[in-house]
Amino acid sequence: MKGKKERLLGVPFDYEATDATDQSPPTALEKGLMRLILKALGDPQIKVILWDGEALDPVDAPAMVLRERAALWRLLYYPTLHFGDDYSAGRIDIEGGLEQFLSRFYTAYRRMPKFMEALQQGLTRYRHIRGNPQHRARDNIYHHYDIGNDFYRLWLDEEMVYTCAYYAPGITTLEAAQQAKMEHVCRKLRLKPGETVVDAGCGWGALARYMAKHYDVHVRAFNVSREQVAYARDKARAEGLEGRVEFIEDDYRNISGQYDAFVSIGMLEHVGSKHYRELGGIIDRSLKKNGRGLIHTIGQNRPLPTSTWTQRRIFPGGYPPTLGEMSAIFSPYDFSILDVENLRPHYAQTLRHWLARFDQQQDEVSRMYDERFVRTWRLYLTGSIANFSSGYLQLFQVLFTRPSNNQLPTTRDDIYDGDY
Amino acid sequence: MKGKKERLLGVPFDYEATDATDQSPPTALEKGLMRLILKALGDPQIKVILWDGEALDPVDAPAMVLRERAALWRLLYYPTLHFGDDYSAGRIDIEGGLEQFLSRFYTAYRRMPKFMEALQQGLTRYRHIRGNPQHRARDNIYHHYDIGNDFYRLWLDEEMVYTCAYYAPGITTLEAAQQAKMEHVCRKLRLKPGETVVDAGCGWGALARYMAKHYDVHVRAFNVSREQVAYARDKARAEGLEGRVEFIEDDYRNISGQYDAFVSIGMLEHVGSKHYRELGGIIDRSLKKNGRGLIHTIGQNRPLPTSTWTQRRIFPGGYPPTLGEMSAIFSPYDFSILDVENLRPHYAQTLRHWLARFDQQQDEVSRMYDERFVRTWRLYLTGSIANFSSGYLQLFQVLFTRPSNNQLPTTRDDIYDGDY
Repeated sequence: MKGKKERLLGVPFDYEATDATDQSPPTALEKGLMRLILKALGDPQIKVILWDGEALDPVDAPAMVLRERAALWRLLYYPTLHFGDDYSAGRIDIEGGLEQFLSRFYTAYRRMPKFMEALQQGLTRYRHIRGNPQHRARDNIYHHYDIGNDFYRLWLDEEMVYTCAYYAPGITTLEAAQQAKMEHVCRKLRLKPGETVVDAGCGWGALARYMAKHYDVHVRAFNVSREQVAYARDKARAEGLEGRVEFIEDDYRNISGQYDAFVSIGMLEHVGSKHYRELGGIIDRSLKKNGRGLIHTIGQNRPLPTSTWTQRRIFPGGYPPTLGEMSAIFSPYDFSILDVENLRPHYAQTLRHWLARFDQQQDEVSRMYDERFVRTWRLYLTGSIANFSSGYLQLFQVLFTRPSNNQLPTTRDDIYDGDY
Repeated sequence: MKGKKERLLGVPFDYEATDATDQSPPTALEKGLMRLILKALGDPQIKVILWDGEALDPVDAPAMVLRERAALWRLLYYPTLHFGDDYSAGRIDIEGGLEQFLSRFYTAYRRMPKFMEALQQGLTRYRHIRGNPQHRARDNIYHHYDIGNDFYRLWLDEEMVYTCAYYAPGITTLEAAQQAKMEHVCRKLRLKPGETVVDAGCGWGALARYMAKHYDVHVRAFNVSREQVAYARDKARAEGLEGRVEFIEDDYRNISGQYDAFVSIGMLEHVGSKHYRELGGIIDRSLKKNGRGLIHTIGQNRPLPTSTWTQRRIFPGGYPPTLGEMSAIFSPYDFSILDVENLRPHYAQTLRHWLARFDQQQDEVSRMYDERFVRTWRLYLTGSIANFSSGYLQLFQVLFTRPSNNQLPTTRDDIYDGDY
């Protein structure tokens, strides 16, 4: 510890000033606090190993290794930020399987008793009073869209689809599952040749090109990322689709014109729930009388905040909505929800494929980025697997139309007619 | 009119005291007001014929015939109650197709400009000040569950299913569509032999018997109606299902035990949105770890109040929720919504079948009930067709489970595998 004035009854109040070289054995207080937390979480069958090698809950379970005293105090002080940051920095390690550890932790965390929630709120207030450490740690922010195409090319499928795939029966590869996802979306939208589609947040443009190629529709696709739009245009040109797919480097709020279909895959997570009504208005003015819309988004069962680490390091402003929150998009404009499908297990599988490729490409990634980056991304991908497989996160595809549209098939049989 | 003191500038303030024998020609004020309302509704292509035979909007369209002066003033004073009541009493008639008239009216009504809504609110306040006429008109309340089995037997299918059917591809009859609905529900719930099911609000017990017979599960079915439960027990006994289906004459709030599946078809409409959280709690305590649930309910896109007439005469306390409102059932208990299907067109078709049978049985119905009853039911069934075909009402089937359930098929292909 830095100095005596920063401690009271053994608690270092200025935890950020703790000395990394201090390797004196854990105190009874430190061990007691960790045990208390595990107990309060309902003994989630995870082990904690302290910097002197002592295992706190000696069960045969995945273990969190705290490499130094400061990691423990940081974790106590701001768990939703520092677990991730200290893992990235190598001050925390996981033994016995990162996914298994996180799955058990998330399951326990979701069942957290009320008094732990109150404690967390108290901590938030305390941190607020002491001043937020985020401003001192901007060096390890790896926001998704600050990273170039070259990184994603290493571990995404060949079409660069960075959203949940669809493992239709018999499909086992990522490539085929991403194609099946695009086909699934097209079938749900009941696209007909010659129709027009607007794609809000089109990523690298795979869906827009798929629709034009396989459904003979005209697509206008919006994306704010210059690099992604450039890539999408190149691909469309190479495939001779220029006349049928138009990539526009602009915000979805500037969508103009009227279309037979509105589609948005993996954008809503970044919209922010206070903009849902505005988004609904944009859809309302963009859809023709019998137009259909599909929103594909990560979601959740309860409106819980995203972890601080994910917010700060991965997805600034990201939030996975509940279906109830999503109704702010549809309800004010009298849209009828026709079909909601929860593809949660498909996202766990998609992420497993991504992580396996990421690990295969580790040498390449390490040449491009430092160790902290590699650990950050491994934690993010593995944590996402655990989030989806434990049921913390959902993946909703929501199909909707105007209430007076009586032109659609009345059952979903046609969607399941024929292979993917 | 009763007397001069009740009128001001030609407006009869005590509209209930207007003299039915007063057949003096409509005044310029009366005609002007009706024209104004049609205009404010956006000229919905409906005609109004007054008691002297004059047609107000002489288009080739379905027409509302006001048989007497009092009907006009009642309509102005309390449209959501008196259109129905005066139609039932024969003071209002519809020419050129009741369904067509109502469809056009509902479509216009939903697009009603804001100032009309404000006017309606003003009227509500005025009625409140003058005292509500409901207490003077209890004689024509035909609540659903005050009517005996004999009436419904006349026009429901042979299994007495009084909820939306499912017209799977190739199915055209009501009987087959009701069987297909039950099959569809069982497939969605992925019932396995030997499992247990609780059925909340089981009606005449058709689904409970279907599940036991075709899926070899044990069903406990709850219903507060003594007459329906007696019928359901008789049927189960006749089919040799006593050991596998148990009908309990009790409220859904008294459900005890834990089950592999929870199902509720056509009950939520009567639960009332302030009880949704409580219902969720009942489901939570009733479902096993990997239990599944399905709620089948009339719903709507926007949270609009049910018409006064429907509330008073047909469904006291009835309310079709939005999906957003329904999340109060699921979200507090961390239930994952897996699948929402909107079967709106199927309810329009079901109701058409019911109305056709009702009309075929008119002689029989007329022997059992008076003319007012017959007109009330015809208006209710036809109005419901118009509500579903115009997209005012929806029919949601919502499938859900606990978040940690990883035992279910990951696609819906199995539901569409095989005929109904």
